[in-house]
Amino acid sequence: MHIGVLGSGQLGKMLALAGRPLGLNFTFFGVDPAPCAAGLGEVIISDFADIEQLNRFMHNVDVVTAESEHIPLTAIQHIEAAGKLLPAANAIEIAQDRLKEKQYIQQLDIPLPVYTHVDRAEVLQDLFNNNPREYIIKTCTDGYDGKGQMRVQHAGQIADVLNTLGEKNLIAEEKVEFQREVSQISVRSGSGEVRHYNLSENLHEHGILRTSTVLMNDPLAAQAREYSERILQALNYVGILCVEYFDRDGQLLVNEIAPRVHNSGHHTIEGAITSQFENHVRAVSGLPLGSCAARGYSCMINLIGEMPDINALLDTEAAHVHVYDKASRPGRKLGHVTVCADSTAELQNRIKDINKILKAV
Amino acid sequence: MHIGVLGSGQLGKMLALAGRPLGLNFTFFGVDPAPCAAGLGEVIISDFADIEQLNRFMHNVDVVTAESEHIPLTAIQHIEAAGKLLPAANAIEIAQDRLKEKQYIQQLDIPLPVYTHVDRAEVLQDLFNNNPREYIIKTCTDGYDGKGQMRVQHAGQIADVLNTLGEKNLIAEEKVEFQREVSQISVRSGSGEVRHYNLSENLHEHGILRTSTVLMNDPLAAQAREYSERILQALNYVGILCVEYFDRDGQLLVNEIAPRVHNSGHHTIEGAITSQFENHVRAVSGLPLGSCAARGYSCMINLIGEMPDINALLDTEAAHVHVYDKASRPGRKLGHVTVCADSTAELQNRIKDINKILKAV
Repeated sequence: MHIGVLGSGQLGKMLALAGRPLGLNFTFFGVDPAPCAAGLGEVIISDFADIEQLNRFMHNVDVVTAESEHIPLTAIQHIEAAGKLLPAANAIEIAQDRLKEKQYIQQLDIPLPVYTHVDRAEVLQDLFNNNPREYIIKTCTDGYDGKGQMRVQHAGQIADVLNTLGEKNLIAEEKVEFQREVSQISVRSGSGEVRHYNLSENLHEHGILRTSTVLMNDPLAAQAREYSERILQALNYVGILCVEYFDRDGQLLVNEIAPRVHNSGHHTIEGAITSQFENHVRAVSGLPLGSCAARGYSCMINLIGEMPDINALLDTEAAHVHVYDKASRPGRKLGHVTVCADSTAELQNRIKDINKILKAV
Repeated sequence: MHIGVLGSGQLGKMLALAGRPLGLNFTFFGVDPAPCAAGLGEVIISDFADIEQLNRFMHNVDVVTAESEHIPLTAIQHIEAAGKLLPAANAIEIAQDRLKEKQYIQQLDIPLPVYTHVDRAEVLQDLFNNNPREYIIKTCTDGYDGKGQMRVQHAGQIADVLNTLGEKNLIAEEKVEFQREVSQISVRSGSGEVRHYNLSENLHEHGILRTSTVLMNDPLAAQAREYSERILQALNYVGILCVEYFDRDGQLLVNEIAPRVHNSGHHTIEGAITSQFENHVRAVSGLPLGSCAARGYSCMINLIGEMPDINALLDTEAAHVHVYDKASRPGRKLGHVTVCADSTAELQNRIKDINKILKAV
């Protein structure tokens, strides 16, 4: 079985590292001239608009999956038309557009933050006049890692926001006073079986995920599974799906969905019986799903902007280092460390050790 | 850091799968026209006698290690002369020749089976005359997976054995009435630090390793560590070394050593904090060693000769499937499964499930 991956970054690399032991082979398609996934299969370096290259890519593979929801929809639909795309285009289409995503979640009767679609400046002005409070203004498309969104606390900031984000195709979301943000990573097979990983709690810095910690016996686990399962089944989804939820006073609200393996699921490589990467390639290649059960306590810490002292990290008990082979740049995810432990106390101590190393950069 | 691997089989593949997350790159050198390690780095397909190709290989890499002790010594020494070989040639030289290996172990005061070097037919004849009993006759070189050895129970079988194995350069080993065969996988860093994995117990079928089960709190663990440490330090070894021991009434006797990652250590991929493959690449590339502590109970089962129903294996709880992408052939190792569990009872149940699948072939 030969899997084609749209995108050639660290997620593609980790998909291949998980799939190769199962005898699966990989070809990647991406624009990056220095791709992380290099050396794990052929990388076709090309614009997604190049139909000839897309056809060559499709011709070589049995199934195509995406490591990013920001692949141009024309390419996604071209591949779907050939019957080779998993998960299907509908999930990517929805995840590419916050308005469609919110409407979809709403239509499934799953709670989400109160939002307004802003398609001209007056809508935002009216919103503040009628219901003055803090809003998060987000572009409907192309936002990630905190990009494409701004906080607005009073009407005086509107002009600035519209100037930066453009004044069409925005979402104004009432700021949610949540206690936690959690991720539910789930997988669905082609035959409709769904399995769920443990919830993980996400902490961000400057809009970028910094840590994701596995939660044990969380009181909201059943609620998250029920909502995520509803989404997976409605989409007739195949593969790994991440749903980020806000926990507001014990009620989960969907923040966003990612139709792919996700940064907040990297802890599953060492912290679960089957990693999200292995389960994704199992699902899209028609193999049985693996167990999503946690293996002890674990926490994933992103390496952002600049690489720390790798030797010091490797010297930390039960720290698993993943380097993405990317050039340093402020705010860029260059790697991650997953640290495992047999108890929360042990985990917290090891996280402290790692944070000392990261702060020494 | 770029690692060169002599050999391009499944061990090379697993070294690369362990090294890529650390940002290490790989080039392989081997004779196999359809190498398992393909697609994980450049594979130079060449005879080991081709100095020009060896030089090209060495030029591209920072350090060279071997996945097999059956690499021609001329190639090993050529690379050592360039200062790029880890572990050093001495270990491979010893492991290539049973006589040298036994003399080396003996000289370190480590127990081993009573043996006689047979360099002509009369020596074997005299041995039976003076001490008639069961012997294992082994060629000094090129033996593996039960090949190059025969059992002799009475003098009448001598002619046949000498006819098959040749009559020069043999070892006649008194058959040891052992209760178990165990493997000690250990790793030594360039700075002389040594770490040991849990002992594992090996079961063979037709001379080929079939299962290797991790032993917890084994009464002979300290003895094995002490002997293995003595060998690692004496050899000034860098990387993973496997020592196979016979357990005869609570006394370990060295059966043989393997100066490389070893089949009886494959359980470390999921069954230990750091796999033998990761620790080997850490050691040879000068990175700190990782923890060798076990993660629960685990057992590695080889897939030999013919592939079983992979879907059924993937459907077994906590079974981790590794396929080597090799053509079927009787007695050939085509893959392995490592099954993990939280208790011996759970492990035994899962092993039973897997054995049912394997027997259905």
